[in-house]
Amino acid sequence: MKTLEKLGLAAAIIAAPSLGIAQETAEAVADTTPQNAEIGFIFTTFMFLIAGFLVFWMAAGFSMLEAGLVRSKNVAMQLTKNIALVSLAAVFYYLIGYNLMYPGDGWTIDGILGAFGPAVLEAVGLAETTPDLTYASVGSDFFFQLMFCATTASIVSGTLAERIKLWPFLIFVVILTALIYPIQASWKWGGGFLDGMGFLDFAGSTVVHSVGGWAALAGALILGPRIGKYTAAGRTVPIPGSNLALATLGTFILWLGWFGFNGGSQLYMDSAANVADISRIFANTNTAAAGGALAALALTQLVYGKPDLTMVLNGALAGLVSITAEPLMPSLGAATLIGAVGGTIVVFAVPFLDRLKIDDVVGAIPVHLFAGIWGTLAVCLSNGEASLGTQLYAIVLVGGFTFGLSGAVWLVLKITLGIRVGEEDEINGLDMAELGMEAYPEFSKG
Amino acid sequence: MKTLEKLGLAAAIIAAPSLGIAQETAEAVADTTPQNAEIGFIFTTFMFLIAGFLVFWMAAGFSMLEAGLVRSKNVAMQLTKNIALVSLAAVFYYLIGYNLMYPGDGWTIDGILGAFGPAVLEAVGLAETTPDLTYASVGSDFFFQLMFCATTASIVSGTLAERIKLWPFLIFVVILTALIYPIQASWKWGGGFLDGMGFLDFAGSTVVHSVGGWAALAGALILGPRIGKYTAAGRTVPIPGSNLALATLGTFILWLGWFGFNGGSQLYMDSAANVADISRIFANTNTAAAGGALAALALTQLVYGKPDLTMVLNGALAGLVSITAEPLMPSLGAATLIGAVGGTIVVFAVPFLDRLKIDDVVGAIPVHLFAGIWGTLAVCLSNGEASLGTQLYAIVLVGGFTFGLSGAVWLVLKITLGIRVGEEDEINGLDMAELGMEAYPEFSKG
Amino acid sequence: MKTLEKLGLAAAIIAAPSLGIAQETAEAVADTTPQNAEIGFIFTTFMFLIAGFLVFWMAAGFSMLEAGLVRSKNVAMQLTKNIALVSLAAVFYYLIGYNLMYPGDGWTIDGILGAFGPAVLEAVGLAETTPDLTYASVGSDFFFQLMFCATTASIVSGTLAERIKLWPFLIFVVILTALIYPIQASWKWGGGFLDGMGFLDFAGSTVVHSVGGWAALAGALILGPRIGKYTAAGRTVPIPGSNLALATLGTFILWLGWFGFNGGSQLYMDSAANVADISRIFANTNTAAAGGALAALALTQLVYGKPDLTMVLNGALAGLVSITAEPLMPSLGAATLIGAVGGTIVVFAVPFLDRLKIDDVVGAIPVHLFAGIWGTLAVCLSNGEASLGTQLYAIVLVGGFTFGLSGAVWLVLKITLGIRVGEEDEINGLDMAELGMEAYPEFSKG
Repeated sequence: MKTLEKLGLAAAIIAAPSLGIAQETAEAVADTTPQNAEIGFIFTTFMFLIAGFLVFWMAAGFSMLEAGLVRSKNVAMQLTKNIALVSLAAVFYYLIGYNLMYPGDGWTIDGILGAFGPAVLEAVGLAETTPDLTYASVGSDFFFQLMFCATTASIVSGTLAERIKLWPFLIFVVILTALIYPIQASWKWGGGFLDGMGFLDFAGSTVVHSVGGWAALAGALILGPRIGKYTAAGRTVPIPGSNLALATLGTFILWLGWFGFNGGSQLYMDSAANVADISRIFANTNTAAAGGALAALALTQLVYGKPDLTMVLNGALAGLVSITAEPLMPSLGAATLIGAVGGTIVVFAVPFLDRLKIDDVVGAIPVHLFAGIWGTLAVCLSNGEASLGTQLYAIVLVGGFTFGLSGAVWLVLKITLGIRVGEEDEINGLDMAELGMEAYPEFSKG
Repeated sequence: MKTLEKLGLAAAIIAAPSLGIAQETAEAVADTTPQNAEIGFIFTTFMFLIAGFLVFWMAAGFSMLEAGLVRSKNVAMQLTKNIALVSLAAVFYYLIGYNLMYPGDGWTIDGILGAFGPAVLEAVGLAETTPDLTYASVGSDFFFQLMFCATTASIVSGTLAERIKLWPFLIFVVILTALIYPIQASWKWGGGFLDGMGFLDFAGSTVVHSVGGWAALAGALILGPRIGKYTAAGRTVPIPGSNLALATLGTFILWLGWFGFNGGSQLYMDSAANVADISRIFANTNTAAAGGALAALALTQLVYGKPDLTMVLNGALAGLVSITAEPLMPSLGAATLIGAVGGTIVVFAVPFLDRLKIDDVVGAIPVHLFAGIWGTLAVCLSNGEASLGTQLYAIVLVGGFTFGLSGAVWLVLKITLGIRVGEEDEINGLDMAELGMEAYPEFSKG
Repeated sequence: MKTLEKLGLAAAIIAAPSLGIAQETAEAVADTTPQNAEIGFIFTTFMFLIAGFLVFWMAAGFSMLEAGLVRSKNVAMQLTKNIALVSLAAVFYYLIGYNLMYPGDGWTIDGILGAFGPAVLEAVGLAETTPDLTYASVGSDFFFQLMFCATTASIVSGTLAERIKLWPFLIFVVILTALIYPIQASWKWGGGFLDGMGFLDFAGSTVVHSVGGWAALAGALILGPRIGKYTAAGRTVPIPGSNLALATLGTFILWLGWFGFNGGSQLYMDSAANVADISRIFANTNTAAAGGALAALALTQLVYGKPDLTMVLNGALAGLVSITAEPLMPSLGAATLIGAVGGTIVVFAVPFLDRLKIDDVVGAIPVHLFAGIWGTLAVCLSNGEASLGTQLYAIVLVGGFTFGLSGAVWLVLKITLGIRVGEEDEINGLDMAELGMEAYPEFSKG
């Protein structure tokens, strides 16, 4: 495989003639102790790789959730969209998104528009003579951050399922992952103006989830509801998903991946304090999901007389979105309640959207947008540094930017290529119309 | 995200003026070297987080296994029960279970009944002036241990599938995860009287698996078999699962999660010796599963003339349960054989339970209870510190406690709320009766 | 659980009286610093365990992919084969394969045939007085390498699906995992003659994937195509898979597992340079999969007028296989293109095999053999140490050895036991014929 790097630690030691002899001040020792810096670098980098593969795994979660919640005649298409969007995100976040989001000192417009240029990783074997070991490898950071970008795109595909054309959707994904997501993310996570204002969004209730939700909402409004979803008399017709086992699997995958999503967003694992904080985040993330699921379970029993599995799944996801803006500071009890509010939002928001005739096939707008807003505001409950005004300002600004720009892109796509399949194709299912294949060719349709 | 903790290692260095200068005895150096302690703390904590998410993932495994082994008319209900029980475990283990199980010095009745009070994690950023770095963060320990509690509840849901009511089942889950599991677990893992007697159960063949199995057995006896499972003439009617692909997926998920279940139970990863032991555990856990699967494969071919996939899946799981009480000491060969005995037990125990008219829908009692007993006894084969008498004593005591208490709870639930759905509802399927929805609404039923 | 090993680091410190005092040359310090060696040992060992469980998880990926791509009447059989082959690999790689592959100084024929004897792990607690801490624990290495062996066998099962008998297939798996795979793998990874010649294959485009592909090809030729696949008039009849949701899930699982497959093959994580290289590998592996998927998506749209989900899935997998021989050296852009070539190969190779009437049910030969050859050659594009001649030589030699030996085994099995089910059994499905059970008993067949 590769030339061994056995001497890595040795090289570090050379550079530290007085290692561990505390004859200087603590900070001086810390900053001039490459050996310890190297250990911290390994810890943080490895943590990013593990958190990153967990967030990657969320792409499978969205695929299964969405495949389970659409009708069987649209399953193959939904799967195609999901694997394609993950792939497009990989390419366009590399080509454009990463440096737009993390311009360092290379902002095109300071604090507002990042740098243009493809991502470049460190040389093999960290060939630099004096590598910066204070954080993590660029490769691990790129890998981790890329998966957040892909997640944002995954959110959109569910809402617009069962009637959108493949290629216009994928063009939107390119614009979302190359431009819309990275630009607004740079405002907070790239050290841009929202970060400077004190906006707090630990792992992305706003930066990731609400952005996916706003893009989905703009698309849903311009695309219109599925045929038969709302009757002329104003009634909403339930269209059950074809495979709740897959939907549940998808929810468990997302729940699992969220440990990486929130935990990795601690960004450092080079000290006992940091790893203890990551532990708090894991525990809080889990309990918020539980709170969301239980709230939806209890509420659907109380309101509708029967529990609703789909609501319970979305309740768990809404709990996860709700805790994402601040998974560290709350106590376990507070995290459970924050998640429970998220689950409650879902139970009431799903019929609310239907009353507005906004057809969101999988419930992504309640889960990611509404609970994302709630989570962003809930930061103020546990983090003394949060300002409600700043949180609201950021929610509105990011929302306006994303909704406006997404809406413009959807409109241009609608006018030029068209974004909706023909009526007959929609009725027969996108799988036969657009792919010429079925997901379950041997099973009869209901 | 959060204030950087770059100085974590630096702080440790200050406290260690003589780091690495071995002018004292080894133990003294070890105990007074915060720098190394901090590195060990990070390793062990991170290991708990990874092992913990693997054990969390087992909840998805149980869900898929059970969803695959019930008939399609009961799939949505089985999924609902599984996601609900994971959520309830999260809340009630936090509120009550954790401190009952790990009372430290705060036993209510010394060695028998732990402490009452909700779990409290360390402060953010380990704000303590002199944090204890000899083990791992409380948050990671809580996260890891919670998942074992949830596993115990998952075991019960499979046995009782296809005829139990949702809410009484969930009430039982609350009592199991808040009281029954933590109290008996404290006897061994909380440092209680069974631990003092020298009872050995590394990762829970008894403490987790047999407890789940006893609770399931008590429930199965009180609930009775499914309609049509046993004819008046005494014949057993096979009721095949609806989706063996999901059942196989669930088995693979459980197999994967078990690396965390057993590996994490080493409890420390702060030394070469510990990480090498965790490696042994991973290898032994894998080969025990293989032994169990192969034994079931060969035996079903020999006994029935055809291999039986469901038995192979349960054989692998029984292999895993069998090695759980002692995954460290056996050689690879011994671990394979220990697992193979587990697989053998399943092949014979499943028809044995049917002869007793105990209807265990997914085979959880053979897998978790019978193989759990075998695994607990098998500790004596490889661990010289084990006493057969003590192992038997603990098996009987934990079994009696769990079976008795569970039986009492099931009886009370039966008398008060009723635990079984009506006959018509059972025949039509729990999904329509209790949820008003189907897992696969578009696919025809057999 | 086990006796604490708190003193692990302490013991290391005793052995390092001059730790960190760089009064000697760097290398001397490195080699005589057990404390740092121990930290590196923990890092690398833990990395192997995590990478190993990810590669284990690929077994679930192959199972789901293959279960999704066969017809429902053969699903239970395909699942049985997959769980059985993983189990057999565990046992026979332990009994024979591991020491054949890694003979150390114990070659039976130097550089060509390794050592015979079962794998033996380190003693519990690393009881050696002076353990070698320069690499990783034997247990972690065994665990990681075993999973590569299992992967090789998984590749074969897909090609031969829907008509091969269970037991002859499993006998082949034993020979493959005990002998064929380990012997040829020893030539490169065991330090044998191909390694001496400078053959480069970082994670196994040739050593794993093409070997699985060659064994599958030999089997497919001797087994013959499925009934009805090729008409007398020479037309190829498409036989769609029964569950594309499962096939997509399987692809995502494989994609996830591949991070461990390629990343772990760095073999060391004891320095900043190594973990940064592992990061590069993760990022390159991901983008190569994306490139393969997008190439297949675009090409099927262009060539056939409609995108083909199955091709997109196989395109992603071919991208992964293509980058496997050299996932470290390429830039992100080059890795994307290397993967895209892999995806392109799949789109053209699948119909090419059909023209040759070689019936490869899941497309494993294009994905693992053809893209494996491409990936092995592509090493020359980014690694200056690669020689095209040596790469070609190794491809041909390993291919000839594997294809020849596999073919001989398949022939002997055909003559003795027979390898193909009867015509009626094939038409009715292997599930009822060989297992007497169905994967989806309640769903009607197409």
